[in-house]
Amino acid sequence: MKEFESKIKTVEWKDNYSKMVDQTLLPEEFKYVNITSGQQMYDAIKSMIVRGAPAIGVSGAHGVALYAQELQKENLSKDEFISKLLEKADYMATSRPTAVNLMWAVEKQKNIIKNSKSDINGIVNELKENCIKLENEDISINKKIGEYGSEVVPKGATILTHCNAGALATVGYGTALGVVRSAYAKDPTIQVFADETRPRQQGARITTLELTMDGIPTTLITDGMCSYFMKKGMIDMVIVGADRIAANGDTANKIGTYTVAIAAKYHNVPFYVAAPLSTIDTSIKSGDEIVIEERSREEVTHINGKIICSPDVNIINPGFDVTPHNLISGIITEKGILRADYNKSISEAFKK
Amino acid sequence: MKEFESKIKTVEWKDNYSKMVDQTLLPEEFKYVNITSGQQMYDAIKSMIVRGAPAIGVSGAHGVALYAQELQKENLSKDEFISKLLEKADYMATSRPTAVNLMWAVEKQKNIIKNSKSDINGIVNELKENCIKLENEDISINKKIGEYGSEVVPKGATILTHCNAGALATVGYGTALGVVRSAYAKDPTIQVFADETRPRQQGARITTLELTMDGIPTTLITDGMCSYFMKKGMIDMVIVGADRIAANGDTANKIGTYTVAIAAKYHNVPFYVAAPLSTIDTSIKSGDEIVIEERSREEVTHINGKIICSPDVNIINPGFDVTPHNLISGIITEKGILRADYNKSISEAFKK
Repeated sequence: MKEFESKIKTVEWKDNYSKMVDQTLLPEEFKYVNITSGQQMYDAIKSMIVRGAPAIGVSGAHGVALYAQELQKENLSKDEFISKLLEKADYMATSRPTAVNLMWAVEKQKNIIKNSKSDINGIVNELKENCIKLENEDISINKKIGEYGSEVVPKGATILTHCNAGALATVGYGTALGVVRSAYAKDPTIQVFADETRPRQQGARITTLELTMDGIPTTLITDGMCSYFMKKGMIDMVIVGADRIAANGDTANKIGTYTVAIAAKYHNVPFYVAAPLSTIDTSIKSGDEIVIEERSREEVTHINGKIICSPDVNIINPGFDVTPHNLISGIITEKGILRADYNKSISEAFKK
Repeated sequence: MKEFESKIKTVEWKDNYSKMVDQTLLPEEFKYVNITSGQQMYDAIKSMIVRGAPAIGVSGAHGVALYAQELQKENLSKDEFISKLLEKADYMATSRPTAVNLMWAVEKQKNIIKNSKSDINGIVNELKENCIKLENEDISINKKIGEYGSEVVPKGATILTHCNAGALATVGYGTALGVVRSAYAKDPTIQVFADETRPRQQGARITTLELTMDGIPTTLITDGMCSYFMKKGMIDMVIVGADRIAANGDTANKIGTYTVAIAAKYHNVPFYVAAPLSTIDTSIKSGDEIVIEERSREEVTHINGKIICSPDVNIINPGFDVTPHNLISGIITEKGILRADYNKSISEAFKK
C-alpha cells in the first residue's frame, strides 16, 4: 500500500493539554493554539476553532481529559470525582449537536470513567492515554478509508468535494480527502474541484489550503457552479465527508451537500460519502431523526466582519442537510465500501 | 391592474449624461454616479457599476448617445460622423458578451444612426430621445411581465430567486422581481427567499436591499441551501431573470441558476424565467451557442479585498450557465407566459 504523507496534524494530546490548529484563522494564518481547560475546549468546538466530525470527536475526548485534570486537583472522593466528571463529559457532548463522533468519543471516555478500577490519578492517566489511542486510531482508520476509496477513483479523475473532510477535519490524513490523498499517491494525474461551501467557506479556507500544502492540484469553485462543470463532463465523481449517517444510509453533512448530490444524480456522476463507522448512528433509522444545528445570523449576513446584504433581511442558517441514501453511490469506511441496501451493509460492517 | 410603486430608478438619461446607481457600492451605499462619456459607460458596464441584462441594454444605448455627443464636437462630415459612431457603437456592444439586450439596444441606436434623415445635431437628439423611450418601454414591459407573472404566484407563496433580476437589473420595477412586486401588490402575504449568488453576491447585495427598501419580506440564503428548503416544502416556486434565451427556450442566466433549476425539478417546484422579448435571441437555436463570459480570478478568491483561499488554487469563473428548456415551467414575457414547445411559443410571441 502506497502511502501519502500529509504534513498536517490537526489535534494532538500533549501530556497535559491539547494542541490544535486554530481553523478560524485559515487561510491567512496556519497557527496552533493550546487548549488547557475543559471549558476552553467546549468553546473551541462551539466556535469552530476545531471542526470536522472526526476532529471534533477526538477533541471532545481531549476535553473530558482536561476536565478530569481540573477535578483531580479538587480533593474529591472517587465517587464525587466520577459523578462530577460524567456531568462535565455530558456537557462537553453538547458543544455541537450534529456530529455523532463527538457523542461517540465522549462515550468512550465515559466508559473509562465508569468502569476503571484505578484511583482518581489512574483514571486521569487512562483518559489521557485514550486521547492518544483515539488519535492514532483516527489516522489509521482514515488511511484504510483512503485505500478502499482510491479503488473507485478512475485514472486521471477530477473529484469534486464539498466543505472539508480532510486532514483538518480529522486528526490527520482525512476521510474524503484521505481518499484523494491515497488516489493521488497512486496516480498524480488526479485533481480536485473544491466547493467554496458558504457560509463558513471551509472548502475555500481549509480544503484548498490543505490540498495545495500537499501539492495536490485544486480548483476552487463557488457552490452554484457544480452543475455547470458536471454538464461539461469535467467532474468524474463527488466525494464528501459526513457528520452523521443513519442506519439506512441517509447522510447529514455540511449544508449544500444535498444540492451537490442532486446535481450529481442528474448528471450521472457517482456520489460517495467517506466516513469512519463512528460517524454511523445505527440508533436512528433515517435522516429524518437527525438534529440539524441552526447557526448564527452573522455567518450569512457578514463576511470578514463586513455586512454583505440588507440589514433588514431574515436569516435561516441550517449548518447541515441530509442527503437521502438513494443519491449515494457508496459509503467508504475503514471496513470497505458499503453499498445499497445500506440497512444491510451497515449492519454487516459493524459485525466485521 | 393594481400597481406596486418601486422607489428605484436604476439608470436615467439626464439631458446630456446618464445617471445610474453605482451597484458596486451596494449594500453599504446607495449612491448615484453620473456617466458623461462613452468610454466611461463602457467601463461602467464592464466593471458592473450597472448590471442586469435590461439595465445593461439601456445603458449601452446611453453609451452610444454619449459617444454621439463627443463626436458632435469634432467638426466631422455627416458620413464621417456616422461611420465613426457606428464603430463606437460596435465597441460599446462588446463591453459584456452574454446579455443579448446590450446588442439589441445598441442595434436600435445603430438603426437611428444609419437611417436618420437629420443632420448631425438632429441625429444626436434622436439618439437621446431614444434613450428615454427605451427607459419608459423597459418599465412598461416590466409591469406587463409583473402582471402576467403574478397570475401564476399561489396565494401566500414563498418565491425563491437567484441573482438580481429586479429594479436594479432593469431601468426600474424588475423582471423576476417585477413579478414579485405585482404579486405582492395583490397579496401581501407572499415572501421571497434570495440566493446569495456567489461570486458577486448580487442576491445578497442587491436583491435583499431592493426588496427590503420596498418593504417585501425577504430571507437571504446561501447558494447551497436551496434544496434544503425545497425538501422542507418551504419554496413554492422559483423565478429568475435571463441574460439570453435561445429560440428553443434554453436560458443563460447568472452562474448557479442551472443548479437551482435541477433542484427545483427534483422537488417538483415550478421554475419560471421572467424576461422581456428583447432577451430572446432567435438567431441561436439552443443554449449551446451562447457565449459564456469568463470573469476574473479575484471574484472567487477574494471578498471585500481579502483572500479567502489558498493563493495556489486554480480558478475557473464562468459568469453564467445555461438552464435547458426542459427544466423551465414557463417564460414570463410582456406578451404573456410562454410554455413548451418554446420554439413555437417564442416565435408566436414575436408575431403578436
